[in-house]
Amino acid sequence: MNHYPPAVVNLIRSLCTLPGVGQKTAERLALHLLHAPEHEVAAISSGIVDVRKKVRVCSVCFNLAQADMCRICEDPRRNPSIICVVESPADLAAIEKSRVYSGLYHILGGAISPIDGIGPEDIRVRELLRRADPRVVQEIILATRTTVEGQATASYIQSLLKGIPLRISRIASGVPMGGDLQYVDALTIGQAMEKRCDF
Amino acid sequence: MNHYPPAVVNLIRSLCTLPGVGQKTAERLALHLLHAPEHEVAAISSGIVDVRKKVRVCSVCFNLAQADMCRICEDPRRNPSIICVVESPADLAAIEKSRVYSGLYHILGGAISPIDGIGPEDIRVRELLRRADPRVVQEIILATRTTVEGQATASYIQSLLKGIPLRISRIASGVPMGGDLQYVDALTIGQAMEKRCDF
Repeated sequence: MNHYPPAVVNLIRSLCTLPGVGQKTAERLALHLLHAPEHEVAAISSGIVDVRKKVRVCSVCFNLAQADMCRICEDPRRNPSIICVVESPADLAAIEKSRVYSGLYHILGGAISPIDGIGPEDIRVRELLRRADPRVVQEIILATRTTVEGQATASYIQSLLKGIPLRISRIASGVPMGGDLQYVDALTIGQAMEKRCDF
Repeated sequence: MNHYPPAVVNLIRSLCTLPGVGQKTAERLALHLLHAPEHEVAAISSGIVDVRKKVRVCSVCFNLAQADMCRICEDPRRNPSIICVVESPADLAAIEKSRVYSGLYHILGGAISPIDGIGPEDIRVRELLRRADPRVVQEIILATRTTVEGQATASYIQSLLKGIPLRISRIASGVPMGGDLQYVDALTIGQAMEKRCDF
């Protein structure tokens, strides 16, 4: 580290706070940022400032937005009778990429995780209950992750919604498409067998 | 991409210009930068500005420096009679980490690579020749990389220095320490066998 001038050492240290960026990557990024064309560096700097100034959270679904409502909630072509519940905007983006879903979303902002001190009141469950009006909504798809925390969160929400007359579903688990069975973990194979459907 | 607000999309795009950062990593970094604590983001921003404002190149060896000369050239404990020739400041840092070398350096700023249009005049060979004064320097260690370009650059410099009465050496190639032979490529094994020394 101290083989570099202090300004470079400081930059390396600050880049190490980024997710997935270790000492080596931070060094490479710092040396790149030192010599990169001015416009590229300016784009990154102003991009960071912009994102923090302009981006807020949708007042309806808590997706990222630049207005009061996000693009999806504002879009009249989206079906308001289905709400897909996800943990994060990145999970929403993954579902949007598949282009198979045309309903609305609800971003919880995490999953229940007692070990990390995250309880039901720390994620947006109450806001979901408020949206679960059977006069508007027919189905709520629980698309939290298939981790222990995501599963627990889905179960918890399902238990809260049980009394309301609407369909509650959970995304399917199974063997990924195009996947070779020998590289799929046992738990997933187990799910794929258990949830098998008629051909 | 357009599942995110425009400001986020712009930031993702600008982060993609960083080395080793693809679409997925850029997305993850952008979402992190959006929510990260203010002081962490400020440290990165000011770190980038600082590095580009304060860091220049050592007037002697072309290492990164914050003054006219770099810390190594300024250090009276370093042996000025040996010059280690490397391609980049990162290569210098790698050698410094090993703590086995106490001489000076010369940073070429690249290697000769006709395919990329980099000829001998594009790297700091002339400046090295100017430093290769046998009244001061006893040895020049060629520590360019062991790539085709690095090897060619070492050979080229060696041919230029041949007439000058000083030792010209090349870093050793062979099996990395702590390495299992079965994971070492054939070319390296070949070098290790050929350059074997008496035990």
